[in-house]
Amino acid sequence: MAGMSAAVAHPPATAADPLPALRLALAGGPRAPRRALLQAGPAARPDPELAARLDAVPAPLLERCLAWLEQPGHHFLPWNDPRYPALLRECADAPLALFVAGDPDLLWRPALALVGSRAASAGGRDNARAFAHAFCRAGLVVASGMAAGIDGAAHEAALECGGGTVAVLGTGPDVAYPRRHAGLLERIAAHGAVASEHPPGTPPRAAHFPGRNRIIAGLALGTVVVEAALRSGALITARLAATYGREVFALPGSIHHPQARGCHRLIRDGAQLAETPEDVLAGIAALAGHLARQLAPPPAARPGPATTPAQPRGDHDKLWQALGHDPIPMDILAERTGLTPATLSSMLLAMELDGRIVVEHGRYARRSSGDGPGA
Amino acid sequence: MAGMSAAVAHPPATAADPLPALRLALAGGPRAPRRALLQAGPAARPDPELAARLDAVPAPLLERCLAWLEQPGHHFLPWNDPRYPALLRECADAPLALFVAGDPDLLWRPALALVGSRAASAGGRDNARAFAHAFCRAGLVVASGMAAGIDGAAHEAALECGGGTVAVLGTGPDVAYPRRHAGLLERIAAHGAVASEHPPGTPPRAAHFPGRNRIIAGLALGTVVVEAALRSGALITARLAATYGREVFALPGSIHHPQARGCHRLIRDGAQLAETPEDVLAGIAALAGHLARQLAPPPAARPGPATTPAQPRGDHDKLWQALGHDPIPMDILAERTGLTPATLSSMLLAMELDGRIVVEHGRYARRSSGDGPGA
Repeated sequence: MAGMSAAVAHPPATAADPLPALRLALAGGPRAPRRALLQAGPAARPDPELAARLDAVPAPLLERCLAWLEQPGHHFLPWNDPRYPALLRECADAPLALFVAGDPDLLWRPALALVGSRAASAGGRDNARAFAHAFCRAGLVVASGMAAGIDGAAHEAALECGGGTVAVLGTGPDVAYPRRHAGLLERIAAHGAVASEHPPGTPPRAAHFPGRNRIIAGLALGTVVVEAALRSGALITARLAATYGREVFALPGSIHHPQARGCHRLIRDGAQLAETPEDVLAGIAALAGHLARQLAPPPAARPGPATTPAQPRGDHDKLWQALGHDPIPMDILAERTGLTPATLSSMLLAMELDGRIVVEHGRYARRSSGDGPGA
Repeated sequence: MAGMSAAVAHPPATAADPLPALRLALAGGPRAPRRALLQAGPAARPDPELAARLDAVPAPLLERCLAWLEQPGHHFLPWNDPRYPALLRECADAPLALFVAGDPDLLWRPALALVGSRAASAGGRDNARAFAHAFCRAGLVVASGMAAGIDGAAHEAALECGGGTVAVLGTGPDVAYPRRHAGLLERIAAHGAVASEHPPGTPPRAAHFPGRNRIIAGLALGTVVVEAALRSGALITARLAATYGREVFALPGSIHHPQARGCHRLIRDGAQLAETPEDVLAGIAALAGHLARQLAPPPAARPGPATTPAQPRGDHDKLWQALGHDPIPMDILAERTGLTPATLSSMLLAMELDGRIVVEHGRYARRSSGDGPGA
């Protein structure tokens, strides 16, 4: 799951010349025309207003981005990049691009957002850790905002048990906030992924944090609020998750605990009450299956006697042959099959949810009772 | 609100010769024919099977009931008695009769059931007390099962603040269970009401407690579960309340607290999450208004310019004239108006919910801004 695996498997197009896409990402202004221009490709000509805005992107900012991107494990994922995570792209207000430090394939793995109050209680942090451990054991990525309190506890726990974790920042991908999380940021970049829509060097600004929350919600199949006061930003993440059609979970607490108030409000408003990680895993199963099938690049090509010979089956056969009973990381699967991590992730998620494969610590293996890819 | 007030205001019919109704209540067997016979009156002749069952009611049991009923404040309310509480009568499986020690008018006052685990935590008992106090301050009766834990705390708190409380027993109305609640039973009989479908002297039997729960649920506008493990009888009360179309509330708690599990299950199944007594009061407002209008004996006769002159307005005018700005207990209102407590209760509840009157410690007064009974 090392960052370099992406460099092997991904189409080199955007890596070769990120400048036009970078300029579009940094230009600001209405998202729609910039997105259209990204899709149209570098040969397209922007309208005069957007062209002026593109010209106005400061050269030092572009240079800072390029210098950052030259360092190992740093990636730029514009909206039209095949590595841009499919679940996030589903959201109407998805960012135009992501700066990623670490393994961009993690953004494709099925994830749960684990968020909550910065002023969390000790019990709340314990709960965050326990849920994060359980999600990692189930092969899910833990996404959060690297804030103090619940977020930090969730990331730490995911790192502890060797699971995948994605930190979405409201700062540049190289700026730790709070500052004491600088070491945590380094460890997440080394063993997980740090993602931000803001260019390197962007300092913390209050206005950026709600935007950070939408990315967390958009990357995840579901958002779990562990502790939240009535005015917590975690409630924003939860409401956005509901807007995106994802599942929302909240842990209840004592009626005298101020950090439970936000969770109780969410439950009243329709969030699922979660007492255990298993409640959450059961709660996302249906949505995960639905999304896996919806996002899978080739429409559910399943070899085997039940499928018609007319269906394309090459990729799935290839992947099934590449899988063994010993767990294999995704970069090896990418090498063996020649498929992109984006394609692989979708296929593996669908196979995992069908019970054909098992995922442990980010490694994939055939389920011992599995008869084949179409079983 | 003393028990004797009922003796003044109630129709004396059933008090005169309770024997036929007592015999029917004690006969056992299918409820429907016994209920039909009660409605038909003492002149009707039972079918042979029921007649045999009526004859088989032991004379000593009848004598014990009659002796108990001779004591002051003891009442027998068969299903066809006008004092039999209307909300309970709405339930398909309502008991054929109630033995009541104390003030039977309390069974007519808008009530909330406050129930929960016998093995309650100290925090749970504190919550029960706080909710009971708030309900009493709002003029509501606190109904519960006089069990250890939450039930006992709820009754004690209601007595403390001089509010009405109704204990529904699974034993005879004269048998305290647990035994250490003998003093509590006496105080509830003296200042509230103790109700049971079982004749005096009936010892505790496990099979009787679910039936006790249905009466609690049936008497109340809503049931509030304060603490409950997954197998608590309080969950039965809550589910019955939902069956009867009443509101169900549950207090959340820590995910690590076993006595919160039952509450969390109820919330998942649709119970309203209650953090404060105000949540409960807001939650029952609509239902209370609906039931008050549905059960009010004369169909919403409201004097005033908005109503047509054809509507009967005598009773409401009479009641409005009897009310002043100084709070008055219901027995005085009954004396002044000549209306039965049953009729009065319905009318007062409707007026209270319309904001025309205020209720404090069981006493009724015009709201200072109220313009009149139809305002």
